[in-house]
Amino acid sequence: MKKLNVGIFGAGRIGQIHARNLSNNPIISIKRIVDPMSSKLKDFEEEIGVKIEEDPEVIFNDRDIDAVLICTPTDTHVDYIIKSAEAKKHIFCEKPVSLSDDESIRAYNAVKKAGVKFQIGVNRRYDKNFSYVKKLVDEGKVGKLELLRVDSRDPEAPGLDYVKSSGGLFMDMMIHDFDMARYISGQNITEVYVNADALVDKNLKGIDVDTAIVNLKLEDGTIGVILNSRRAEYGYDQRLEAFGSKGTAMVKNELDANVVYADKNGYHAPNPQHFFLERYTQSYHDEVNDFADAVFNDRETSVTFNDAIMAQRCAIAAEESLRTGKPVKVRIIE
Amino acid sequence: MKKLNVGIFGAGRIGQIHARNLSNNPIISIKRIVDPMSSKLKDFEEEIGVKIEEDPEVIFNDRDIDAVLICTPTDTHVDYIIKSAEAKKHIFCEKPVSLSDDESIRAYNAVKKAGVKFQIGVNRRYDKNFSYVKKLVDEGKVGKLELLRVDSRDPEAPGLDYVKSSGGLFMDMMIHDFDMARYISGQNITEVYVNADALVDKNLKGIDVDTAIVNLKLEDGTIGVILNSRRAEYGYDQRLEAFGSKGTAMVKNELDANVVYADKNGYHAPNPQHFFLERYTQSYHDEVNDFADAVFNDRETSVTFNDAIMAQRCAIAAEESLRTGKPVKVRIIE
Amino acid sequence: MKKLNVGIFGAGRIGQIHARNLSNNPIISIKRIVDPMSSKLKDFEEEIGVKIEEDPEVIFNDRDIDAVLICTPTDTHVDYIIKSAEAKKHIFCEKPVSLSDDESIRAYNAVKKAGVKFQIGVNRRYDKNFSYVKKLVDEGKVGKLELLRVDSRDPEAPGLDYVKSSGGLFMDMMIHDFDMARYISGQNITEVYVNADALVDKNLKGIDVDTAIVNLKLEDGTIGVILNSRRAEYGYDQRLEAFGSKGTAMVKNELDANVVYADKNGYHAPNPQHFFLERYTQSYHDEVNDFADAVFNDRETSVTFNDAIMAQRCAIAAEESLRTGKPVKVRIIE
Amino acid sequence: MKKLNVGIFGAGRIGQIHARNLSNNPIISIKRIVDPMSSKLKDFEEEIGVKIEEDPEVIFNDRDIDAVLICTPTDTHVDYIIKSAEAKKHIFCEKPVSLSDDESIRAYNAVKKAGVKFQIGVNRRYDKNFSYVKKLVDEGKVGKLELLRVDSRDPEAPGLDYVKSSGGLFMDMMIHDFDMARYISGQNITEVYVNADALVDKNLKGIDVDTAIVNLKLEDGTIGVILNSRRAEYGYDQRLEAFGSKGTAMVKNELDANVVYADKNGYHAPNPQHFFLERYTQSYHDEVNDFADAVFNDRETSVTFNDAIMAQRCAIAAEESLRTGKPVKVRIIE
Repeated sequence: MKKLNVGIFGAGRIGQIHARNLSNNPIISIKRIVDPMSSKLKDFEEEIGVKIEEDPEVIFNDRDIDAVLICTPTDTHVDYIIKSAEAKKHIFCEKPVSLSDDESIRAYNAVKKAGVKFQIGVNRRYDKNFSYVKKLVDEGKVGKLELLRVDSRDPEAPGLDYVKSSGGLFMDMMIHDFDMARYISGQNITEVYVNADALVDKNLKGIDVDTAIVNLKLEDGTIGVILNSRRAEYGYDQRLEAFGSKGTAMVKNELDANVVYADKNGYHAPNPQHFFLERYTQSYHDEVNDFADAVFNDRETSVTFNDAIMAQRCAIAAEESLRTGKPVKVRIIE
Repeated sequence: MKKLNVGIFGAGRIGQIHARNLSNNPIISIKRIVDPMSSKLKDFEEEIGVKIEEDPEVIFNDRDIDAVLICTPTDTHVDYIIKSAEAKKHIFCEKPVSLSDDESIRAYNAVKKAGVKFQIGVNRRYDKNFSYVKKLVDEGKVGKLELLRVDSRDPEAPGLDYVKSSGGLFMDMMIHDFDMARYISGQNITEVYVNADALVDKNLKGIDVDTAIVNLKLEDGTIGVILNSRRAEYGYDQRLEAFGSKGTAMVKNELDANVVYADKNGYHAPNPQHFFLERYTQSYHDEVNDFADAVFNDRETSVTFNDAIMAQRCAIAAEESLRTGKPVKVRIIE
Repeated sequence: MKKLNVGIFGAGRIGQIHARNLSNNPIISIKRIVDPMSSKLKDFEEEIGVKIEEDPEVIFNDRDIDAVLICTPTDTHVDYIIKSAEAKKHIFCEKPVSLSDDESIRAYNAVKKAGVKFQIGVNRRYDKNFSYVKKLVDEGKVGKLELLRVDSRDPEAPGLDYVKSSGGLFMDMMIHDFDMARYISGQNITEVYVNADALVDKNLKGIDVDTAIVNLKLEDGTIGVILNSRRAEYGYDQRLEAFGSKGTAMVKNELDANVVYADKNGYHAPNPQHFFLERYTQSYHDEVNDFADAVFNDRETSVTFNDAIMAQRCAIAAEESLRTGKPVKVRIIE
Repeated sequence: MKKLNVGIFGAGRIGQIHARNLSNNPIISIKRIVDPMSSKLKDFEEEIGVKIEEDPEVIFNDRDIDAVLICTPTDTHVDYIIKSAEAKKHIFCEKPVSLSDDESIRAYNAVKKAGVKFQIGVNRRYDKNFSYVKKLVDEGKVGKLELLRVDSRDPEAPGLDYVKSSGGLFMDMMIHDFDMARYISGQNITEVYVNADALVDKNLKGIDVDTAIVNLKLEDGTIGVILNSRRAEYGYDQRLEAFGSKGTAMVKNELDANVVYADKNGYHAPNPQHFFLERYTQSYHDEVNDFADAVFNDRETSVTFNDAIMAQRCAIAAEESLRTGKPVKVRIIE
């Protein structure tokens, strides 16, 4: 059986996760991994059984490589996407494509021109709880969707350096929730209105916000809201409600154990699984294997470049709404 | 409209509750209340608007009184039942009828001979949660019942004096659970086996037990178990599971508030409602009004003297099983 | 003991509920009830034991009456409040005071001038679940409040006639949620932004909305959101979340029974208690008795005229935001 | 680094699971696998990268093999244990050791004499929920344990052939629950009393039971109960409650998704994860790796031969109690 040859750009935390998640897939062969820090990655090299090289050109130039995973810093994504597309390699890229709509559209056009497959890394779509609700919505169990709520709160705020380089709350964190709203509803978001502030860390004022409620209007008239906080003392809070004409469907948090303890102070249950690595283990596994399956079977990827562009445009519109204090339209890609 | 005239024996805690619960019923008139402590009951007298007398004979002799509630100490029940029956009054009596099967049967025969209606005070049958499960069982939702579990735990152990006078754990506390097992299943209990000890209070050893697991065999082959403790640190624990060929139905505890609070130590919910007065407010209200309705409309009472005898016989059999360490058959009343 | 003499304007559904809820309070005597439909209220008259009169003047003119309950249609409230205040009677009035800020302020000034006590009928503040969360917030368990969410959905949409006469979704329904946000946070709402539409019933378009997400800014920087729908297929949905620097507190729905049933299709629990009469039985009882207690003990009422004005101004601001598509400031009463 | 060389007897379902679960462990090298059906295991052979041989002697005779996993049919266990012990190999063996106490003791003595490590395959001890409760008990959060309840119900009854060869309900199914009771309590079970019948399948009568409630007495006075059914329509039911002087700790079921859906018929959640392979994925992974760690680090195994013997003796005592209708003592291994 001809396997799919994969090259990976970047062997940091997420690159290693993807590599491990592909390593048990019988249709996949990880052929090359490149990372500028290869000398510090000896343990991983031994574990995964692939030599880690430093020059990304070895992947672009390797004709046997069918598909690439781009797991490098955000500011390199556009360049790697364009070069991979030109080398006719199918592409899985971590979100966001870039911090600029123009740059992302440049990458988008290159992919379109090359005719290669593209998938953006929004792993939460593969989570069994969120996809269960998606299924209920698609099957009509919720009826016509009317209200959509996405709760997404991190256990602790990142440092100021991270905030600055990551593009801020809307581009780094809420972009997942914009995508989730689009995924669950199957609709584009057409307008956002932001109510947000630096409530967790006042030093952030003027730089970014850490607490936000964002109103959404969707193409089909559904209205929605996203609630974000950079710090939830009780842990990583990932919930959702999809309410419609026939009922409502809600995702609850996954706790450290399904145990209830009762004492003289009441009933107690453990905190949610700590953060995205613990909470989304299963979805990280499934997203790259689904990408591999799409390439292997020559079908459309489950998440497209359009999805990447639209979530990013929501984030950009949210930034404008925060600046202007007004609702802002989101331009839909044709 | 001719109202039902009611007489009440005993204006202690439970007598007062019943009186209040009947006071808003338009078909009821509380005509007389007797209590030897009448002088200490002035507040209640004013509230309820009925003079509290001392001599029980005024009720037996009052031809206008249709029905009586017996809310006096257990050792007076049989005497009051027999005299009330002879005076042709319908009878609601607090559980247990007595601590002796012979005595209870004597009262039973008097009631039968007089042809008056009789209801024993097993209020939990009227609780909306337990009756919801009863309805699921009766509608066939659970299928053929196979396993039945009753959890019943008090928030704190009573004093030694109470234990001695009340007849002990089986007769005072578990009698409710025997009745609940009979109510939910619609079956008689034919055999009990007791596993019990004084684990909460070692001073109780030789006098009574405070922790018990009692196996049940039911007439139709269903098997069951009751778990009792005299002390649950987290509060009054009243749960049940009815498992059968089509599914299972479970009663959960009623908490002080339907609120969840989460902090760095996890999720927290309030304790159960404190004890029987708080937990069973609604069922205490409904049981006496259902008795009144049965008398008023001349229909059979929802809980009968047979039910009283059978729950009591289970308690007596449990005491024997504890003594002998063996399973004990429960004699069914014809 | 001198009792408090109460007069009631209006013996419709809510007037009857209040009368019954006061009838067991030993400090209260319901002296007069007036209702233009007295001839149709014979059953209630007999039950409550007070003759129902037609002319409201008998209450204004009765010097023995200390306090009144105004349970008449909204368009009579201002007139009744002013006359009651002039007659030096303490006032409990159903919400809203009126549909106009000027009118409400006129009544407010009359009450202020007369120096009588005033309480507006926002019963949900007395619900044990919501007041439990209020207590957690006040005790600092939630820390500094940052995000507040109020979910409030009716089981079924009212008819068009009701919508027109009631003042519409914001004034009739969401006014409770504005008040709840103010109650839980202890803060004024300073700005609202509305995202709303007629999604349940398209015939309502141009007349009112039935589905709404409303963003809130609070005085202390807390941000919030209210989610309303006129129709939830699963029933009356009354939830809330108060999230802050130390944790989060959530009110869950009260179901018809605390029972879980499992079969081959999964786990199942009953629907929420049907509507406000079932859900808020306890809070309706407590609010009027708390008002009576405030008057009896000459203390401030727990809910004030300011509270009434501010919730109403939020509703008026929401209407403006809906019309203009922009955030609207809420003027705070001095 | 010197790795641990492992040999595996049996490459059926459970043997394959163990092999996969060890394959990512960097301290482990799976050196040999033997299975009489090797010709039918080509796919697995390719996947795992180890040639599957037919003759078990190749493992006994391979001096490089440090440890073995015995995943063959129950009737071969004793023979394989004894030969492996004589070959000085550490042993992980699937439960039960055998269906006979004498046979198991023979294997036990061989292991003792050889001084090799031994672990019995009771994977549920490694489940994160059950071990969370074990931790609460060990930390004293539950206080002195008083009542212990283990609920264990399979989604569907096995065929008659399986029942006959597996040793029946007590030896095949409840043996896990006896072990769980021992694990959670840290106590030996000293007496069992059985209430059981063939309620699911009447054809089973005289051959085996499928529904059972078994009372337990523990060494320290704790009393307990196990509730088993071979068929729960709603799925694989694996719960537990440990109640003591300070509180109670309960394991809840793991559902297919943490989602709640509400419609006009109430609230709904998915069924439990289907059966042991889905429910105990994590614990199967952890148990073999913990065994490997014990051997690698030359420490005692977490589950011992004593544990295997004692759970088996509980099952044998339960069979006697079923036959005699009386409580039966369990002989404790010295």
